[in-house]
Amino acid sequence: MKAVLLEEFGDAGKLYLGEAPQPEAGPGQVLIKVAATSVNRPDIIQRQGNYPPPKGDSEILGLEVAGTVEAVGTDVSDFATGDKVFALVGGGGYAEYAVAYAGHVMRIPDNLSFQQAACICETYITAYLNTFSLGRPEAGDFILLHGGGGGVNTAALQLCQALLPDAQTIVTASTHKVARVAELGASHVIDYKTRSFAEEVKSITGGKGVNVILDHIGAAYLADNMKSLAVGGRLVVIGIMGGIKAELNIAVMMVKRQQIIGSVLRSRPVAEKSAIIADFNATVMPLFASGKIEPLVSNSFPLEQVAKAHRAMENGEHFGKIVLTV
Amino acid sequence: MKAVLLEEFGDAGKLYLGEAPQPEAGPGQVLIKVAATSVNRPDIIQRQGNYPPPKGDSEILGLEVAGTVEAVGTDVSDFATGDKVFALVGGGGYAEYAVAYAGHVMRIPDNLSFQQAACICETYITAYLNTFSLGRPEAGDFILLHGGGGGVNTAALQLCQALLPDAQTIVTASTHKVARVAELGASHVIDYKTRSFAEEVKSITGGKGVNVILDHIGAAYLADNMKSLAVGGRLVVIGIMGGIKAELNIAVMMVKRQQIIGSVLRSRPVAEKSAIIADFNATVMPLFASGKIEPLVSNSFPLEQVAKAHRAMENGEHFGKIVLTV
Repeated sequence: MKAVLLEEFGDAGKLYLGEAPQPEAGPGQVLIKVAATSVNRPDIIQRQGNYPPPKGDSEILGLEVAGTVEAVGTDVSDFATGDKVFALVGGGGYAEYAVAYAGHVMRIPDNLSFQQAACICETYITAYLNTFSLGRPEAGDFILLHGGGGGVNTAALQLCQALLPDAQTIVTASTHKVARVAELGASHVIDYKTRSFAEEVKSITGGKGVNVILDHIGAAYLADNMKSLAVGGRLVVIGIMGGIKAELNIAVMMVKRQQIIGSVLRSRPVAEKSAIIADFNATVMPLFASGKIEPLVSNSFPLEQVAKAHRAMENGEHFGKIVLTV
Repeated sequence: MKAVLLEEFGDAGKLYLGEAPQPEAGPGQVLIKVAATSVNRPDIIQRQGNYPPPKGDSEILGLEVAGTVEAVGTDVSDFATGDKVFALVGGGGYAEYAVAYAGHVMRIPDNLSFQQAACICETYITAYLNTFSLGRPEAGDFILLHGGGGGVNTAALQLCQALLPDAQTIVTASTHKVARVAELGASHVIDYKTRSFAEEVKSITGGKGVNVILDHIGAAYLADNMKSLAVGGRLVVIGIMGGIKAELNIAVMMVKRQQIIGSVLRSRPVAEKSAIIADFNATVMPLFASGKIEPLVSNSFPLEQVAKAHRAMENGEHFGKIVLTV
C-alpha cells in the first residue's frame, strides 16, 4: 500500500510517499481503508525523531483516520465491512490502510465528511479529556486556553461553548489570530505577543484567577499559569513547547489548593483509551451529529503533499486542523 | 475564661495561661465547654508568627476541641445544651470555651473519651481528605506516607488499613520510630535517616512506583516524590517543612500523567468544610464507634503545661497525638 515514509528523522523534506506492507486486523481490531487523516503536532515531533510510537504501534506517522471498514479481526462485533468510521490510532494514519482497536473506532455521523471526521479523534478527544474530564470546570468558571489557533485549543473553545455555556473562556493568541479566536466565540482574547497573560487574567477575573487552564507550553508558562490560577484551580499540562524544567512555589500551591495535572493521550493503555472514547462518543459526538459544533478544517492537502502540510503547521499558518486526503 | 495566650510570637516559653473574653455562639454556631483540645503542628507555626488564623476566626491557638455543648446560636437544630461533641475550629481551641460552626461539630461515640475525641478532627479529617478524597487510592495500590510518627501520618496509616486493606502502605520514619510504625501495621517502613526513600520505593514496587503520596515536606522531597510516583499517580502536598521552592520536571510529569495536588484544610470556606465533615462523619466515624480504629493518643498535658506540650512536639518525642486537658 502507499504510505508516507521518512528518509531519516529531520525536517519536512524527509517525508515521501512510498510503499509499505498493508497491515492486518488482529483480534479485537478493525482494518480501515483510509480516506482522510490529519496532521497533529506530535507527528512533527515524531518526524524529528523525538517521539517514538508506543510499543506495538505502527512506525508510520498519523494518529487518526477516517474511512471505510475493510475487514474486522476476531472478537469484533460492533463493526462490519463497509461501515464509515473514524478512529484514534497509535500510529499509521498517513497510509492507504490503517488498523485500530475496535474500542477506538466510532461511526461517522451522516452530516460529516471523511475530511471532517479525520479531525475529531486526536484533537477533540484531547481537548475533552483534558479540559473537561481532568480540568472539571463548572458553570460560572473561568477557563484559560493557550495558543489561539491550534487544533486542540480551538476544539476546547468549541466544547466549552457547547457543554458549559455559563463558563467564560479566556484564550491567548498571537496578534494575527486574535480576531478569528474572538469570532469563534471566546469570551476574552489576550494577544500574548504584546500583553502579559497573567496580568490580563488578573484584570478579567477581578483578581480571582481562572479555575481551569489547558496548557501546552510547559516550563516557560509555569510561573504565570500558577499566578493565573484561582484558589482550587487546576492546571492541565499537555505539552512542553516552552521547555521542560521550571521552579514551582509549593507553598503558594498548597495555600491556594491548586493542582497540576500532567496528561498525554497516546501512551495510555488500550482499555483506558477505549473508556475515554466511549465517554466521548456518548457526550460529545451528539454535538457533531446535530450540527451544534463542526470540525474546524483549516487546510486540506493530498497525501503526496504531506511535506507542504507539515510546513503549514510549522509556520503556524493554520487555524483549526490540517487534513490529508488519501 | 481561662485561655492560652502569647506574650509575643516566639518559642514555646511565650505561651501562658491567662484570661480572655468568653466567646458567644453566633447564628449557626455552637458554644462548647472544652474538656480537651490537641496540639497540631500549625499551632507551632502560628505561635511563631507565621500562620495567622483565617479572617473571622479566634486569635487563640487550637484547631479542634472536645467537650459539652454549653449553648447554641440561632438556626442550630442538630445540637442542644449538654450534648457531648467534638469539633473542628478555625482557632480558639486552647481555652475553656470555644465556638464552632454547627456543620463542623460531630457527636462523640459512647466508646470514646474527650481526650480521644479531641484527636480526631484536625488530624483524621486532614488524613482522610488528602489521602482518600484527593489522593483517590484504589484496591491494590501503593500509598506512600511521610513522617512515621506524626499525627496525620499515623491517622492516614490507620485509615488506609481500615478503608482499603488491599492497598500496601509504605511509610518513611526516623530510625527510632521504625519499629512502632511497623507495629501499627505499615506494609513497609523506610528509615529515611539511612536510606533514600526513592530507591526503596523503586525496589518495593518493582519499579512501578506508588499511586498516592501524602507529603508535608514540600521542596526538599519534590524531586524524589515525583521519581517515586507511578504512571497516573497523585502527590498530595499538605506541608512545606522542607522548603517552598523546587524545580519541577514537567515533561516527565506529563508523560507519566502525574498530578500534584496542593491542599490545606483550615482556610477552606465554612460550607466546604461542612461538606468534608459530613462525608467524614458518614465514612470514617463508624470505624471509631465500632472500635475498628482508635485515636492514637501519645501524651496528655493539662492546659497550663502547654509549653511543655509544644516542646514535646518540636522535639519529635510523640507518636500519635499530643492532647491538652482543660
